[in-house]
Amino acid sequence: MKSVNLAILGLGTVGAGALRLLQDNAAEITRRTGREIRISHVGTRRPRPDLQLDGITCSDDLLSIVRAADVDIVIEVMGGMTIARDVVTEAIKHGKHVVTANKALLAEHGNEIFALAEQHNVHVAFEAAVAGGIPIIKVLREGLAANRIEWLAGIINGTGNFIMTEMRDKGRAFNDVLAEAQVLGYAEADPTFDVEGIDAAHKLTILASIAFGIPLQFKKVYTEGITKLTAQDVEYAEQLGYRIKHLGIARRTADGIELRVHPTLIPEKRLIANVNGVKNAVLVQSDAVGPTLYFGAGAGAGPTASAVVADVVDLVRLMTAESAGAHVPHLAFQPDALSDTPILAADQMTTGYYLRIDAEDTPGVLADVTGILSRAGINIDAILQKPAHTQGRVPVVLITQPVREYAMNQAIVEIEALQAISSPVMRIRLENLDG
Amino acid sequence: MKSVNLAILGLGTVGAGALRLLQDNAAEITRRTGREIRISHVGTRRPRPDLQLDGITCSDDLLSIVRAADVDIVIEVMGGMTIARDVVTEAIKHGKHVVTANKALLAEHGNEIFALAEQHNVHVAFEAAVAGGIPIIKVLREGLAANRIEWLAGIINGTGNFIMTEMRDKGRAFNDVLAEAQVLGYAEADPTFDVEGIDAAHKLTILASIAFGIPLQFKKVYTEGITKLTAQDVEYAEQLGYRIKHLGIARRTADGIELRVHPTLIPEKRLIANVNGVKNAVLVQSDAVGPTLYFGAGAGAGPTASAVVADVVDLVRLMTAESAGAHVPHLAFQPDALSDTPILAADQMTTGYYLRIDAEDTPGVLADVTGILSRAGINIDAILQKPAHTQGRVPVVLITQPVREYAMNQAIVEIEALQAISSPVMRIRLENLDG
Repeated sequence: MKSVNLAILGLGTVGAGALRLLQDNAAEITRRTGREIRISHVGTRRPRPDLQLDGITCSDDLLSIVRAADVDIVIEVMGGMTIARDVVTEAIKHGKHVVTANKALLAEHGNEIFALAEQHNVHVAFEAAVAGGIPIIKVLREGLAANRIEWLAGIINGTGNFIMTEMRDKGRAFNDVLAEAQVLGYAEADPTFDVEGIDAAHKLTILASIAFGIPLQFKKVYTEGITKLTAQDVEYAEQLGYRIKHLGIARRTADGIELRVHPTLIPEKRLIANVNGVKNAVLVQSDAVGPTLYFGAGAGAGPTASAVVADVVDLVRLMTAESAGAHVPHLAFQPDALSDTPILAADQMTTGYYLRIDAEDTPGVLADVTGILSRAGINIDAILQKPAHTQGRVPVVLITQPVREYAMNQAIVEIEALQAISSPVMRIRLENLDG
Repeated sequence: MKSVNLAILGLGTVGAGALRLLQDNAAEITRRTGREIRISHVGTRRPRPDLQLDGITCSDDLLSIVRAADVDIVIEVMGGMTIARDVVTEAIKHGKHVVTANKALLAEHGNEIFALAEQHNVHVAFEAAVAGGIPIIKVLREGLAANRIEWLAGIINGTGNFIMTEMRDKGRAFNDVLAEAQVLGYAEADPTFDVEGIDAAHKLTILASIAFGIPLQFKKVYTEGITKLTAQDVEYAEQLGYRIKHLGIARRTADGIELRVHPTLIPEKRLIANVNGVKNAVLVQSDAVGPTLYFGAGAGAGPTASAVVADVVDLVRLMTAESAGAHVPHLAFQPDALSDTPILAADQMTTGYYLRIDAEDTPGVLADVTGILSRAGINIDAILQKPAHTQGRVPVVLITQPVREYAMNQAIVEIEALQAISSPVMRIRLENLDG
């Protein structure tokens, strides 16, 4: 049978990893596919004498590569937005299947890209775009296909989870750990995408779309980073039996879909609360199977290449079938069956809260605070009153039951208006994640 | 497009669950497949007035059902061996795809069944046969297709894990918890399959085959149950920083493949050590992605039906493609590419050990024991000497580094021959499961 020809665009960490993996595991992969896979082109500007590139055409003319006759599948692992979008579009227009790890591209332009792919009868595969080597796209699109998915919650940014883990294990401050993560290569020189939750929001956009059968809607994700977390809050949460994780959460409600990325308290006994370091995990609640969890490496050359090459294997099978009917729909559901369920505004979301209120150590403050919450219909699950700080200020920590965010917003305005309260209320959302 | 017709054989827990799930989530499933799925026949002996069976032909003549023209996919969820094998064989010979949850049937007769399916150009899907609703078959066959899988370790029998969890959490005795599990419906009246590890061995056989691309070889699985575990051992393991789980382990070594089911100490900080109750989890170590873990419900109507119906969705896609090239090979690798790597005999396997030796409280016993281990080349990682029992007997607990089993067998013979040792040495294997 004719071999399948690949072009790898980009020879950074992921591109080089995919090249090496295809070469190292060629025999094992051919045992699976029954068909030879050949790398015909590589798109790169830098020479890479450390890689085995014999018999591969190397060039920096990406548009020519994607148009070449001896290219069946284009692997876009350059990252970035503008050029990536151009080459992916050109590849599709020339009838090539595409494999991409580019979560930003898909979260922001995926709807147009998938529509173009349907039009040209090609497939765009993106397992590597979310949670690295964990096959979460396949699980959601195929493995859980019988289920109505109710919600999912994921640790989908390894850098953020490394920082949170170090803060907890060693009581370290955020900035201190971030600096170390940069030295270790876990965090970029500009860590904004990771620590402000933008990278997680890109990934959550994709997960939510395939979980619920809705178009990609990145701009509607409520996104909050981890930069304001203190070691103190991490410790108080611990004392109350919780861990703080930076979660991406997508949930169906009667009114619409919640899409949100923010630091979240979760009960320490949950398996996902024990996912530490740079690892990723996604917890999915579905109607038939109940809760399932998927754990593994979310980044790195090997794990990302694993996902890229799994997509290649799927596409080789699809090409062998030579029929579009065999392909799994891009967003798990048929393109004409996507739903227009609204995405909820942030203040319409429902969640529990951890509140830390630094109050003057005067009588009646706790009564005032609990009175405000009570009148707002907010129930308190736990109270932790700590010994006074310096200058007679007392941190009061409260855990509340789930409440609509607008009710909490209003209550916090009232609490901050109390005479005994002079600093802003620290609030962190809390999810029980019980299936 | 023509609807796809299903026959469900068996209306027990799983069959009724699959029927309900297909009916309840029909709209969501059609959104995914783009094609209507219709249940045309049900094979059952008992009337089920509690189910919605309008428009479905019900009969107990299973062989006629699988031959019927208005059946495209046969769902075998009766269990058992003889009749199940007959109807699956007959269905395949009549060109029907098959979905089965029958792990015993596949582990013991899968090689013939898959060969027959290849010959008749149909597919036999079996996601529900292992770990219930966790899509572990899909993950291993497709999601990790780029990887050379090195080993996997799974909690793949929920009954056993429930018993182990209760023993640990509450210090209860094995028989006591087993009796409760039977009352709760977690364990059968005859619990042999669960507590002796046979059910786990069936599942491990299937997992190993698709992980390594080897034929199904149930008879070569080393299988040890949990009936001999004592609350005391669970507690000592705990004091040493370990949990005991009943694991199915498949591992490539230079000499062959280890296939084994036995109680296993694992470090308490591993995620899989924290999988409790009736839940299942499979930890997979692969060369590119490293360790990944898959967690969820391993049994029950909803989870098993979730897996059955996911297989149906895959088959509908395959039928729509009308080309055999699109199907994933039954055992993940092409049938002519299966490997004849030998399965290791039990005494050739390598593992760490927990040893509990009840010795007379006389001087020199510990020196004798450690001397025997030292001469056998077995290194000790930890020693826990407990206060004397009644009658002056002292339990000595040792943790060893990995060693070939035959060396340990020989050392235990020597230890048991010591004058100060009058009861058999309790041994439990130990795995670090570090990726």
